[in-house]
Amino acid sequence: MEYVFGIDIGGTSIKCGLFTTLGELKEKWEIPTRTQEQGKFILGDIAKDLLEKCSLWSLERENIAGVGLGVPGPVTADGIVQQCVNLGWKKLHIEKQMQDLTGFSVKAANDANVAALGELWMGGGKGYQSIVLVTLGTGVGSGVILDGKVIHGSCGAAGEIGHLVMNPAETRQCACGGFGHLEQYASATGLVNLAKFALEEKQEPSCLREEKELTAKAIFDAAKKGDSLAETLVNTMCSYLGRALANVAMTLDPEVFVLGGGVSKAGDMIAERVNYYYNSNILEPLKQKEIRMAQLGNDAGIYGSAKLVL
Amino acid sequence: MEYVFGIDIGGTSIKCGLFTTLGELKEKWEIPTRTQEQGKFILGDIAKDLLEKCSLWSLERENIAGVGLGVPGPVTADGIVQQCVNLGWKKLHIEKQMQDLTGFSVKAANDANVAALGELWMGGGKGYQSIVLVTLGTGVGSGVILDGKVIHGSCGAAGEIGHLVMNPAETRQCACGGFGHLEQYASATGLVNLAKFALEEKQEPSCLREEKELTAKAIFDAAKKGDSLAETLVNTMCSYLGRALANVAMTLDPEVFVLGGGVSKAGDMIAERVNYYYNSNILEPLKQKEIRMAQLGNDAGIYGSAKLVL
Repeated sequence: MEYVFGIDIGGTSIKCGLFTTLGELKEKWEIPTRTQEQGKFILGDIAKDLLEKCSLWSLERENIAGVGLGVPGPVTADGIVQQCVNLGWKKLHIEKQMQDLTGFSVKAANDANVAALGELWMGGGKGYQSIVLVTLGTGVGSGVILDGKVIHGSCGAAGEIGHLVMNPAETRQCACGGFGHLEQYASATGLVNLAKFALEEKQEPSCLREEKELTAKAIFDAAKKGDSLAETLVNTMCSYLGRALANVAMTLDPEVFVLGGGVSKAGDMIAERVNYYYNSNILEPLKQKEIRMAQLGNDAGIYGSAKLVL
Repeated sequence: MEYVFGIDIGGTSIKCGLFTTLGELKEKWEIPTRTQEQGKFILGDIAKDLLEKCSLWSLERENIAGVGLGVPGPVTADGIVQQCVNLGWKKLHIEKQMQDLTGFSVKAANDANVAALGELWMGGGKGYQSIVLVTLGTGVGSGVILDGKVIHGSCGAAGEIGHLVMNPAETRQCACGGFGHLEQYASATGLVNLAKFALEEKQEPSCLREEKELTAKAIFDAAKKGDSLAETLVNTMCSYLGRALANVAMTLDPEVFVLGGGVSKAGDMIAERVNYYYNSNILEPLKQKEIRMAQLGNDAGIYGSAKLVL
C-alpha cells in the first residue's frame, strides 16, 4: 500500500493527514503554526513531524507517494510562494525546500484550490472533473478545477470571486477598499452587516432585534422560523450569490458548483434560493446546473493537498 | 514540410486556409455555405474542396497533419456538435464524419475559442499561454485559453461573457431576454442603442444628431473629434467592458486580454479607457494586466482551427 501526506497550513495551526493513495484517511492531527521570525520554522516543523509519523507507522521512503501542501496565499504553477502575509513568508520556493527537508516529492497550491480538489476527490464534487468550490465564510473564496486540473491563474489569483463587482451602485465599502463586491453580501460578515443596516434603517419588527451579538447562524435560524426581515436578508444574500455563480458559469461553465464554508451549513435553505437566482440570470444552455453542498468540512484542505501529489 | 488545413465555418461562407505547421499561411480562400436541408451538404463540400486543394498543391496524405474546424456553436470536448442554428445542424459527430470523408485527422471547436487560439498562436496573444480573446461585434463573445488549452466548458458554453449581468438595475432587455447584460453596452449594437437612447433623452447638442444611420464607427469618430455626448457614450461602453474584464480576471486570471471584432478597430481610444476601468475594479495583485488588440482580423478563425490539430 502506498501513502501520501496532505498538509493544510493555516495561520494558527497546521492540519495534517495521512492517506492511502485511494483516498482513505488513516490519521489526522494538528501542529501549531510558528509564525515567528517571518515563519522560518514552519516548513522545518512540518518536515520533522512527517518523518516522525513515518517511523511511527513504520513507513519506508518507497511507501510514500509524496507530500501535498495547501498554502493560505497564491502559489505559482512552478511551486513558488510570492508572499503569504498570514504566515510571515516572503518569496519562498516552497516545493523545493520541503523536498530538500524530507526527500519526498512535494506539490503545493493555494488553499482554496486545494479545498476544491479535496471536494472533487472525496467530497461534494466526487465523480466530476470540473467544479468550482465556493467557500462562504468570513469572506468568499473559490477554487477552480477544470478537467481535473487546478486552475491557478497567471498571478495565482484565479477564483478570487469574493471581489466580483456585483453592485456598481453600492456606496458601502468592501474590506479590500472596493465597492459592491460579492463578499459584502454573501459572506457571514456580509450577511451580518446587511442585517445591521436593515435593523437600523427599517421599523419592521424582527426577533433579530433581541440578539445581543448578531451572527449568520442567528439570521438563518430566524429565517427558518419565518421572521420576515431575516427571510428578506437571506434572499438578498442568495440573489447576489446566485447571480455571481451565473456570471462564473458564463465564463467557465463547470459541471457543478459546490458550496462550502460556515455559511453553507444553512444547507437546503441556501441551495434552493441560490438555484432560483442562478437560473434567473443565466443563458438557456447553462440552466439547471447542479449546486451541491461540500461534504468534507475542515478536512477538504488535507484531502485536496494529498490529491495534489497523485 | 508538413501542412494543416484551418477551416472557419460561417453562416454564409466557409473560410479556408492552408498553413505550414509552423504557422505560415500558404493560401486562403472561401467557399459558400450551403445551409439547405439542415446543412447536410456542408461537410461534403469542405471535404471535396480540401481533397482538390491537396491535388493542386501536390500534397500527399503524409504531408497533411490534419484538418481543424471552427463551428459557430458549442462543440463538446469529444467533437460533437449538439445544435448549430446558423448552419441548420442538429446533433452531429462532426470530427468523426469529417475524418470519414477525408481520411485526415480532424479536430473541431467553437469559433470563439478557435479565434482565441489563432490570436494566441500568431496574433495579439503570441508568446502567451493563457489569454481571453474578447470579440466586440454585433454581440460580445469570448474564447478562453488556459495554459495553451482551449477551455470548452462542460456544456461548450465557457466564455459566454456577452451575457454577464453587469447592471442588475437595467430595465431595457438584452436580445436573449435578460436585463443589463454586457452585450447591451459593449457591442456595436449596444453602443448604437446607448446613443439612440441618449439622443432621445438629452437635449445636449451632438454631431451624431446629423447622422442618417448611426453606427459604432460614427460614434467613435465623433468622440475622437471631441463631441462630448459621443465621448460619454464611449466612456460608458468602456466602463462596462473594463469592469467585465475585471470580473473575468478575478475568476480566471489569464496572462493577457486580447480585444478583437469590429469595435476593436477603435484601437487605442478603447484600450486606454478599458484599462482605466479595469484597474478601478480589480484586486491589487491583478492590476496592470495587459489589454492588447487582436491582429489577425477575420483570419483568426482559420489560424486557430489549424492550430487545433497541432
